[in-house]
Amino acid sequence: MNIKHISLLALLALTTLSAKAEQEWRQLNASNTILMTLPHGKVVIELAPQFAPNHVEQFIKLTKQKHYDGNKFYRVIDGFVAQAGPKDGSFKDKSVPTLTIEGEWATDKNWAFTKVQNKDLFAEQTGFKDGFALAHNPSENKAWMTHCPGVIAMARSNKANSASSHFYITNGQAPRYLDRIMTVFGRVVYGMNHVQAITRTSVIEGQAKVAKQDYTPIIAMQLMSDLPKEQQFIIEVQNTESAMFAEKLVKRKKRANAFFYKKPPPVLDICQTPVKARLLQAGK
Amino acid sequence: MNIKHISLLALLALTTLSAKAEQEWRQLNASNTILMTLPHGKVVIELAPQFAPNHVEQFIKLTKQKHYDGNKFYRVIDGFVAQAGPKDGSFKDKSVPTLTIEGEWATDKNWAFTKVQNKDLFAEQTGFKDGFALAHNPSENKAWMTHCPGVIAMARSNKANSASSHFYITNGQAPRYLDRIMTVFGRVVYGMNHVQAITRTSVIEGQAKVAKQDYTPIIAMQLMSDLPKEQQFIIEVQNTESAMFAEKLVKRKKRANAFFYKKPPPVLDICQTPVKARLLQAGK
Repeated sequence: MNIKHISLLALLALTTLSAKAEQEWRQLNASNTILMTLPHGKVVIELAPQFAPNHVEQFIKLTKQKHYDGNKFYRVIDGFVAQAGPKDGSFKDKSVPTLTIEGEWATDKNWAFTKVQNKDLFAEQTGFKDGFALAHNPSENKAWMTHCPGVIAMARSNKANSASSHFYITNGQAPRYLDRIMTVFGRVVYGMNHVQAITRTSVIEGQAKVAKQDYTPIIAMQLMSDLPKEQQFIIEVQNTESAMFAEKLVKRKKRANAFFYKKPPPVLDICQTPVKARLLQAGK
Repeated sequence: MNIKHISLLALLALTTLSAKAEQEWRQLNASNTILMTLPHGKVVIELAPQFAPNHVEQFIKLTKQKHYDGNKFYRVIDGFVAQAGPKDGSFKDKSVPTLTIEGEWATDKNWAFTKVQNKDLFAEQTGFKDGFALAHNPSENKAWMTHCPGVIAMARSNKANSASSHFYITNGQAPRYLDRIMTVFGRVVYGMNHVQAITRTSVIEGQAKVAKQDYTPIIAMQLMSDLPKEQQFIIEVQNTESAMFAEKLVKRKKRANAFFYKKPPPVLDICQTPVKARLLQAGK
């Protein structure tokens, strides 16, 4: 490859990058997207192999093995999580290797994201990268995926490196105290209303218990790219690296709309800052 | 009344106060509690006349007039709010007087609550009083009810003093930027799962719209004390003024449980700090 070639490639790369920053929407990669079918609706999850590669690899592998089909949401607490897996810790489950936690990663001085806020209760900085809500502590050179509503993470026992297949989806106010000590590996981009409708298994004192046969099952868990084209959900999400998205963050902080007759503090809660999705095709 | 009498009364008052601090649970006052019946379940709401007296008075009045029976949840956005009222801004609605906003109130130096946290993104202090999540800015001598998941507040137009009957219940990450500029006047203490199951009316771009006839209706809105005894829900909530509750807050910050192999920052998000309820009687 001569210098001319390299220059052309560099130019091409620059053009692509610049185009990326101009694009408000980004289409999900089907080989990185999960379709979870519940009895009452379909849920689409975008995985984050760039932040939790081993967890995503294992989740995809288990999905392809139909490991999750028929699993039940056995621990569902309103305002906290909906957790699924084979309740009995069955052999099927024990055959699954445990994973080393990927709750945070090291950053160098060039590491960057679309910053949303300095210093919230749990982090020095919060922001987005590739549509995912992250936090960053420059003082420690550490970043992590935050527990916002609708993230998917692996459950574990008391040991850090004990996650294998059981997972949870957060369904209430962000339990940020779980940040860095659990591995978040994706987020719901479509069908969060169906996640919210999963039968709660946890009841309050004095309330009738829910029978196990009434727990919500997973009808099927599938990798989107494994489905016939017409069954696929084709979804775009806001490109959090775009200039348009950055502008929206600024506007959201300002609250210029007349509805805000008195302006709130010019701050943003990372978990209350939406990254929108739009549907190009609903799977049949 | 002689001095002896006064002393006895004072002693009695002290005993009552001290007993209050010893009691972990507090029973809801039925004449201050709402039963909202949805097609798929029952929801119990505790009102807060101590913080928003005029809004509570009007809400109870409208409830008794059966104003809300048959109303629909016409603006339901996942992760934000479920809002109800007569969609058409009908005459029925226009006959209702508008309210002066009660989004915050003045505090004096003796004002106190069960403090949970100093300095979160939106307030100088957060804490609980009578089971409700509050925020306090001592520098301004102002306190307010915070927008946590499951609060009920009056909707309004752009004008501060324009709320009348339409209301919303928050169903996602706390929209704290609405604090102080909306009137929160109660919270869901039971049946939040049914609030979460209200049909979303807001869809994403490319998604099929929801037909108006499919919007979730309110079957009935009733003041608990107006119901025959056997139909009442009798509920207790944690007494946020008790020593036990204060201890729980300390424990929650410490996270001594072995599950936390690495301790999170010793902070609490007021909206992710549960005030538990227990059921003494489920209404028939």
